[in-house]
Amino acid sequence: MQQPAHGGNLAWAAALAGCPPSAILDFSASISPLGPPKSAIAAIESQLSHLKNYPDPDYRELRLALSHFHQLPPEWILPGNGSAELLSLAGRELAQLAATALITPAFGDYYRALAAYHAEVLEFPLSLVMTDLSWIFDKGQRTKDGLLLNNPHNPSGILFSREAILPYLKEFALVVVDEAFMDFLPPEEEQSLIQVVQEYPNLVILRSLTKFYSLPGLRLGYAIAHPECLRRWQLWRNPWPVNTLAAAAAVAVLQDKEFQEQTWAWLPPTRDQLFGGLASIPGLQPLQSAANFLLVESQQSSSQLQQKLLKHHQIFIRDCLSFPELGDRYFRVAVRSWSDNQRLLEALSLVISH
Amino acid sequence: MQQPAHGGNLAWAAALAGCPPSAILDFSASISPLGPPKSAIAAIESQLSHLKNYPDPDYRELRLALSHFHQLPPEWILPGNGSAELLSLAGRELAQLAATALITPAFGDYYRALAAYHAEVLEFPLSLVMTDLSWIFDKGQRTKDGLLLNNPHNPSGILFSREAILPYLKEFALVVVDEAFMDFLPPEEEQSLIQVVQEYPNLVILRSLTKFYSLPGLRLGYAIAHPECLRRWQLWRNPWPVNTLAAAAAVAVLQDKEFQEQTWAWLPPTRDQLFGGLASIPGLQPLQSAANFLLVESQQSSSQLQQKLLKHHQIFIRDCLSFPELGDRYFRVAVRSWSDNQRLLEALSLVISH
Repeated sequence: MQQPAHGGNLAWAAALAGCPPSAILDFSASISPLGPPKSAIAAIESQLSHLKNYPDPDYRELRLALSHFHQLPPEWILPGNGSAELLSLAGRELAQLAATALITPAFGDYYRALAAYHAEVLEFPLSLVMTDLSWIFDKGQRTKDGLLLNNPHNPSGILFSREAILPYLKEFALVVVDEAFMDFLPPEEEQSLIQVVQEYPNLVILRSLTKFYSLPGLRLGYAIAHPECLRRWQLWRNPWPVNTLAAAAAVAVLQDKEFQEQTWAWLPPTRDQLFGGLASIPGLQPLQSAANFLLVESQQSSSQLQQKLLKHHQIFIRDCLSFPELGDRYFRVAVRSWSDNQRLLEALSLVISH
Repeated sequence: MQQPAHGGNLAWAAALAGCPPSAILDFSASISPLGPPKSAIAAIESQLSHLKNYPDPDYRELRLALSHFHQLPPEWILPGNGSAELLSLAGRELAQLAATALITPAFGDYYRALAAYHAEVLEFPLSLVMTDLSWIFDKGQRTKDGLLLNNPHNPSGILFSREAILPYLKEFALVVVDEAFMDFLPPEEEQSLIQVVQEYPNLVILRSLTKFYSLPGLRLGYAIAHPECLRRWQLWRNPWPVNTLAAAAAVAVLQDKEFQEQTWAWLPPTRDQLFGGLASIPGLQPLQSAANFLLVESQQSSSQLQQKLLKHHQIFIRDCLSFPELGDRYFRVAVRSWSDNQRLLEALSLVISH
């Protein structure tokens, strides 16, 4: 059986491990282990009797909740069927430019979204040690090109500062920043460009609600950009992209300050625990990360580690074969609970030493 | 306050009626009044604990259920985020041809989906009395063009026979048939092209699960077409378009034979009741319909009728202003329960005679 091209395919992993998908300890998908929040489930249940109505095509309530959350006018916000839907729309927008610059290794769906509209792609390799963007781009005019990057960067976990990105808003015709993991940073540390979006009509920000709130099954994201851009996107897509249950869950979790605080309190020490544990295993070298996952360099083949962990421990890590720049010497793991992380560390030690 | 451009916007209607949206008796959206089936709600509830996993990107279980339901290989079926998402993909496909023929009056979102990809549109007016397709199209080569039609036709409710459409599969480069309301016809009367799809690589069929099963809030449809076409569409869109809850509900309702039988038993006599009642009101002339809605010609302004019904009876009918060929002398109503239909008929009699 061939491995699927994208991460997070539990069915494939379960077949290899010889157990039901629910028995897999999944470190491959970068999803918070703390959720979904009870507020999300309660909101979904409260809407079950309203499924016989179409969703509000303007998603007014959801837009207002996002508007309040980000202190932005609602017309700068477009909810979508996961940030993946909005990425497809960004791909179409970028394809109208001469070329799009990608920082590699890049999330596989970026290539799909750009190829879907025959966009020209320019690859700029990220140094895993020199993370200053000025080291990545050569000098020269970029005013006909777009830039698509994620911040924090996936799969490395590197965080670019707001100041590091701002100059490129003047150099590139369009800058799309995928901030799918930015909400894992507490308010005093986050580097989102949302606070400057009203100054840059050529800036598009993509956000996800499914990683922080553990709701990838629900599909929910949003774009933040100039209202003119969002009005164009609205005509490119179907009128009701977000279902009623997902919209209600989103409104609820945005107000769930308790869950947010709990996540910000959980992540840094637990990530430190996992980082320290990985660094102490011979042959493994984790990278410092601002997100809820760690990229790990491995002296052993990562796909072999992955298979052994599945077969002997029902633990699923993310190999990096879909990132050609990383190949078989890297894997990625989500930060999970203290005890889950401990299980991974013990299993990795066993698998590596045998 | 301006009326929204599309039907089914309850919030607008409720504001005009001065009541909460839940108090509106909604005849404007062509949704079955019988559902959602209990099986759908139970399936959704059973999946609430699985939202922390991504949906299976291949939607294997859902495809298998559809494959079994239609007796078709799974690779001929592509689930989507409502048939509206699949219509957007069909729009992109059709835009690659010289032009697309539409039978008018046509569903407003057809124009949006075609315009989104700058498709050339050719309009062919449907005669509301001569429904033989050979009266609609002039003779001449159409091999560079596509055809997009719905069957049963919306808003007229006219049903084209399978045999009436088949010749056009040889004349047009691509034929997209939106069968969103076909499931309202019992198996012995339906005229779906699904049974011949494997013979025509230039045929695409769009289906909805949200009208028959009263689940428009959930967003769920599917396309049936040649696997090569569906593989292309898969690359054009995001990898997880259907959320876990919608996929589970779909699997459940496809197996809900009891709900299906109940719907087929309910519709014909109840539609006759509504038809007869409308025909007996002076100045109204309903058209025979094969679907769960009736188009009604009215001597009085339909938008005035609509406003009076909202203000005095909290009843919402669909005006036809968004269909320029029909304008203010037609309205559309869904077939609802016997007693709801009676309420509409009494309210209409009062409003028309005053």
